[in-house]
Amino acid sequence: MPIYKAPTTDTLFILNDVLGLERYGNLPGFADASPDMIEAILGEAAKVAEEALFPLNLSGDQEGCSRRDDGSVTVPKGFKQAYDQYCQGGWIGLAVPEEFGGQGLPYTLHAAVGEYMSSANMSLMMYPGLTQGAIAAILVHGSDEQKATYLPKMVEGTWSGTMNLTEPHCGTDLGLLRTKAVPQGDGSYRISGQKIFISAGEHGMTDNIIHLVLARIEGAPEGTKGISLFIVPKFMVGEDGSLGARNGVTCGALEEKMGIHGNSTCVMNYDDATGYLIGAENKGLSAMFVMMNEARLGVGLQGLSIAETAYQNAVAYANERIQGRSLSGAKAPDKKADPIIVHPDIRRSLMTIRSFNEAGRAFLLWTALKSDIAHRSPDEAERQNADDLLGLATPILKGVLTDKGFDHAVMAQQVFGGHGYIEEHGMSQYVRDARITMIYEGANGIQALDLVGRKLALNGGRAVMAMFKEIGDFCEENRADETMAPYTKALKKGLNDLQAATMWFMQNAMAKPDNAGAGSTDYMHLFGLVTLGYMWARMAKTAQEKLGSGDPREEYLKNKLVTARFYMEKIMPETALRKVRIEAGSDSVMELAAEAF
Amino acid sequence: MPIYKAPTTDTLFILNDVLGLERYGNLPGFADASPDMIEAILGEAAKVAEEALFPLNLSGDQEGCSRRDDGSVTVPKGFKQAYDQYCQGGWIGLAVPEEFGGQGLPYTLHAAVGEYMSSANMSLMMYPGLTQGAIAAILVHGSDEQKATYLPKMVEGTWSGTMNLTEPHCGTDLGLLRTKAVPQGDGSYRISGQKIFISAGEHGMTDNIIHLVLARIEGAPEGTKGISLFIVPKFMVGEDGSLGARNGVTCGALEEKMGIHGNSTCVMNYDDATGYLIGAENKGLSAMFVMMNEARLGVGLQGLSIAETAYQNAVAYANERIQGRSLSGAKAPDKKADPIIVHPDIRRSLMTIRSFNEAGRAFLLWTALKSDIAHRSPDEAERQNADDLLGLATPILKGVLTDKGFDHAVMAQQVFGGHGYIEEHGMSQYVRDARITMIYEGANGIQALDLVGRKLALNGGRAVMAMFKEIGDFCEENRADETMAPYTKALKKGLNDLQAATMWFMQNAMAKPDNAGAGSTDYMHLFGLVTLGYMWARMAKTAQEKLGSGDPREEYLKNKLVTARFYMEKIMPETALRKVRIEAGSDSVMELAAEAF
Repeated sequence: MPIYKAPTTDTLFILNDVLGLERYGNLPGFADASPDMIEAILGEAAKVAEEALFPLNLSGDQEGCSRRDDGSVTVPKGFKQAYDQYCQGGWIGLAVPEEFGGQGLPYTLHAAVGEYMSSANMSLMMYPGLTQGAIAAILVHGSDEQKATYLPKMVEGTWSGTMNLTEPHCGTDLGLLRTKAVPQGDGSYRISGQKIFISAGEHGMTDNIIHLVLARIEGAPEGTKGISLFIVPKFMVGEDGSLGARNGVTCGALEEKMGIHGNSTCVMNYDDATGYLIGAENKGLSAMFVMMNEARLGVGLQGLSIAETAYQNAVAYANERIQGRSLSGAKAPDKKADPIIVHPDIRRSLMTIRSFNEAGRAFLLWTALKSDIAHRSPDEAERQNADDLLGLATPILKGVLTDKGFDHAVMAQQVFGGHGYIEEHGMSQYVRDARITMIYEGANGIQALDLVGRKLALNGGRAVMAMFKEIGDFCEENRADETMAPYTKALKKGLNDLQAATMWFMQNAMAKPDNAGAGSTDYMHLFGLVTLGYMWARMAKTAQEKLGSGDPREEYLKNKLVTARFYMEKIMPETALRKVRIEAGSDSVMELAAEAF
Repeated sequence: MPIYKAPTTDTLFILNDVLGLERYGNLPGFADASPDMIEAILGEAAKVAEEALFPLNLSGDQEGCSRRDDGSVTVPKGFKQAYDQYCQGGWIGLAVPEEFGGQGLPYTLHAAVGEYMSSANMSLMMYPGLTQGAIAAILVHGSDEQKATYLPKMVEGTWSGTMNLTEPHCGTDLGLLRTKAVPQGDGSYRISGQKIFISAGEHGMTDNIIHLVLARIEGAPEGTKGISLFIVPKFMVGEDGSLGARNGVTCGALEEKMGIHGNSTCVMNYDDATGYLIGAENKGLSAMFVMMNEARLGVGLQGLSIAETAYQNAVAYANERIQGRSLSGAKAPDKKADPIIVHPDIRRSLMTIRSFNEAGRAFLLWTALKSDIAHRSPDEAERQNADDLLGLATPILKGVLTDKGFDHAVMAQQVFGGHGYIEEHGMSQYVRDARITMIYEGANGIQALDLVGRKLALNGGRAVMAMFKEIGDFCEENRADETMAPYTKALKKGLNDLQAATMWFMQNAMAKPDNAGAGSTDYMHLFGLVTLGYMWARMAKTAQEKLGSGDPREEYLKNKLVTARFYMEKIMPETALRKVRIEAGSDSVMELAAEAF
């Protein structure tokens, strides 16, 4: 049976020691986030994840969701109780302003907690996860009335939320969407059309479901300039907040998916459903992007989450399964064979995943902290810098943490040999679940294009310059520190490759945009390698400082340094390959005629 | 719905033009394999694959196999008819000597045909595939009587075969196996024990199933030195070949697997089953390795097969799905959007898979030809050289073609966006099916260890020297050819990296074997990159020669050169990364205590 234990020690090290959350006490909500408080919250979250969510993960995959003829959907056994427990713990509103029933704590803490929850049960966590995206959009673009009507119920989890973008013929290219909105003269609209791949689209776990739906108002321009965002509740909401008649929105079918079987992925049919405009007419895409950006961080988090739980299971198996002898002589001579963790190739896999997970966690929390600063800092320059870095980091976090998260779930599965292919061990589920994270909320190719085509040149390259400066400064500040050389040298080399590739785009992609497109995925990963390398260098720095100061976590800190070294020696050199590929340009990529493939 | 079309043009180019099969007319069976004959056979194979096997692939995955209470197993609808058609076409015995009912044609041709069949329906093809492995073992190690009793029925497919190695507590480390064999004094043995993961272990498609089973004869030494191989028929076989009583072997359960649902993967229980020794007592492992080596080529072939069919489906989708506009201006201005094949990042994925498939096919056929030469050449030196290269190539072919085959199935699935995650499009099945190829017949970490720990140093490094010489000579011979420079320069660079890494092992792994273990997977892929690069250089050479000679395949040959260039520019540079990783050694890999992971 699979296992999972929330890595609280590592999260605390990153939050308190590396990122120094205490230094941000001036931000709203941060004063309450003392180290003691953080530790208590993480401990509580670990309990919910390990004890309430995790035991339902494998059974939820095996049972899946089912739709009855009346369009209602049944979720796996136990999901409702675990969902209720999650809601009652106040986890949905952890970082939501107190006026709407939240706790107003840092988003950074919400991200830290979210990792555990998704590690424990990604399918189940998607139900409140989608609600959170909807909350974010209503918070930013909703009217005061809409906020008052919807947010408190969504924060307490008695109502859930969804995002309705994709239609059968369009996903990435939302300009093609056809769902129609007809004004009714009373401020409401009639919404008609079909949406597909709607996560948590229908289920019986909440009293109401608040669908956020992209549609085109009759007569609006074609393309992305004519798209508006609507609130479409499953049950109509009276002025006093009471629930009324069923709205014209139904689940037409459940998709048969490769994974996330515990989540109901629905075809949603809108048939003259009553909807309410949120934000301005024809500005739906920008309203949707509030949700989308939050969701992208959430999906990056999922990639990390699965890699972490897959890693823990691979470690347990590697310590338990005996097979063959160590190349350097028997390590368990009393047994008929050594545990397979003695084999260098098994350790290579485990160290690869470990070095990604720990840096990925730091990157996630670093990015979440930028989000907090961007939204809460009283200092405009600080806000802008944080917002720049958040925008830059979002596609990298989403793309890299999910591409690698999936690869590492596969790698962890491989440690199990044939047993990894059998469903009962749970490793297949991790791989199948992780696979969707590379696709939804913008397939990773779209993340790469967002990075190269949009984020790179935005505001004259201000964000990328800020990032290069932050990393470059770190290398510079530690240049004289001999003990930091193994980390900063490799990091600097990686940064040089990244800067060279950036320069190459500047010189070669303006006149020939295909050069940017052909190198975009390599660039995203190059950026990810350097960013994770930067996280490792910072963690190594902190670990060394703490080690010299009689810190009780001596073993933990020493292991940090070993893993940092592994990353620099084995993973970081990939930057050179990515750079070479980018600089090879797009000619051989674009030359074949479409029909010649 | 998924599509598949056998790539006969490419196979013919490789067999006739690149490998020059005609030059081997002196080998038994090759005189019959004229270009016309080859084309006819491939055409016939394509028909069986496309029309009989492929239509059952998706339905076979969805229906799966089921076991009844009496231990019998039902295969998916249509499998029996398609299997019969395959057998009646004589495909099992294509390369088996005529005296046992085969056609005695080159194994190379068998491999070419096998690719199509596995592309079309890997699960179904595993039934005759396992039979083929069993045939190979009986051919080499069976007594004349055993050959006469079993081979003709197996070649015609009325009896099938299996390989029984793995037990619950051991797979890789067969020295631990516990299945017992007790001599009965009449030359037969009583076999008792449990085997797991037995592909095609039970089904009703054939009159009998011939299990080849590894077991330990009572009193035999512990470890691998006490293992013998037995023939255990499902139904006892009378002297006249008639079927008698049911033997004591039953299917105890079917495994719930991630993929290959159409194949029955069984827990097999042996309960005083009658078995017959094949080969010498306690020499079972070497007898098993005959099957295993053949099976490893077959699994490498599967990796390629799935990558090919996944590629074809991704291409079709990319040409059909419209979404967004080309970065260099609309390509289908009459439509609302361009087909996604205009996007460089989509093309990067397609070209990556394509460049792997075509070189992988050449590598497979090159290796199969070495097998033919090793087994059929009248010249001892030629036989030895071919056998050396076959032994060296086997783990590389298995490990690299399946690791990459899986990666590329994932890449092809990604082209479909969200639709790739839905089972009805078939892309999920390709990924789930491909996943097992990295695991069975020796997990890929074992292939890497076989390469580095065994094949590299065998006979004083004779095989690796021969390979380096073959590639080096090719570069040298073409040094003066300017038009070949884009290919040979990159190949030479890759070869240099490979030689440097080999040298590093020689200098650093003798005293510290962990250095070999930690770098083994990187080395296997480094060797794969160079070998596929060598295939590309040879294909480019042939294509250029043909292009100058008024060959009617002009477009095909030009596309070959573009794909060759893509490989050299985008894929080949990975050799440098692999080398750096190897040379970083094992220190950071081995340092953590087992309990610290």
